[in-house]
Amino acid sequence: MTAPETNGRDERLPGERRVLGIDPGLAVTGYGVIEGHDSRARMIASGIVRTSTKTSRAERLGRIFEAVSELLDEQRPDELAIEQQFVAKNVRSAMSIGEARAAVMVAAATRGVPVYEYAPRSVKESVTGFGGAPKEQVQQMVAVHLHLDELPHPLDVSDALAIALTRLAESRLERALARSGR
Amino acid sequence: MTAPETNGRDERLPGERRVLGIDPGLAVTGYGVIEGHDSRARMIASGIVRTSTKTSRAERLGRIFEAVSELLDEQRPDELAIEQQFVAKNVRSAMSIGEARAAVMVAAATRGVPVYEYAPRSVKESVTGFGGAPKEQVQQMVAVHLHLDELPHPLDVSDALAIALTRLAESRLERALARSGR
Repeated sequence: MTAPETNGRDERLPGERRVLGIDPGLAVTGYGVIEGHDSRARMIASGIVRTSTKTSRAERLGRIFEAVSELLDEQRPDELAIEQQFVAKNVRSAMSIGEARAAVMVAAATRGVPVYEYAPRSVKESVTGFGGAPKEQVQQMVAVHLHLDELPHPLDVSDALAIALTRLAESRLERALARSGR
Repeated sequence: MTAPETNGRDERLPGERRVLGIDPGLAVTGYGVIEGHDSRARMIASGIVRTSTKTSRAERLGRIFEAVSELLDEQRPDELAIEQQFVAKNVRSAMSIGEARAAVMVAAATRGVPVYEYAPRSVKESVTGFGGAPKEQVQQMVAVHLHLDELPHPLDVSDALAIALTRLAESRLERALARSGR
């Protein structure tokens, strides 16, 4: 597929950056695109990519790769933020999580978009102020941060937006530190 | 990259098929291309893809994806065979294995090449007749099956060729069963 005529970057105000947040999963991958500057951020797009259990695992990973590739081409984010899990029920489930994550990271790598990884605890901490917050509280705080009229649904979308917000908060901090010469 | 002028398929005798075997790993991925028919198989190409620990994980997975994509475009295999692990030292190592596997499977999926997965035990059983065979014995039997003058090195290449041989043996069996109408 080809990139859309209008490059998303052109609409950004100076100093703003656009982040694609991804909550990866073999069955359901949530995504959210946000754009912002300092403490202001707005949602540009969000949704889920669902893969069919009737297709092979390679095909499901290919579908995630293609969907994320399309998002990167259409939305032109400056950065991609993704959840980095360290826990899983068992080895098989850990491998599945790794596979879905990789399909996303490969898409970013082929387009030269930098990838930032965050542990679930860091995302919760950044968005709610508490690393042990339940997913519902994350959902509420995501709605507050992005001035959404409704709670983001499903939780895969809420998590993806929370991951993107975490990256935006971190990059604000990085710039502030750079300005102060530290 | 573009496909080479000569399509590998043209050189095959009737009924022959070409298989790309992959032993995936984030640091070192072994590959082997074999071509054959019934009990005869020959090695077409083999080697390893090494990724640098100095680059990000997304870049390393992107490198594996691109190397396998090039192999698929240049060698034009009919099928891709890959190891399916079910054991790992820990969750983090399981995720890494899953990530490298996914980078390979995504490359196959984007090109519509079917992927076959084999457990290490099945590969050893198929190549040596014993599921608990040590890697060195696999290496020797791979050399015998493919009429190689030297043992395949390193073990990543030997394993990749063994996985490809396993797929070729299975497809022979599938064809034999189809002919006998079972």
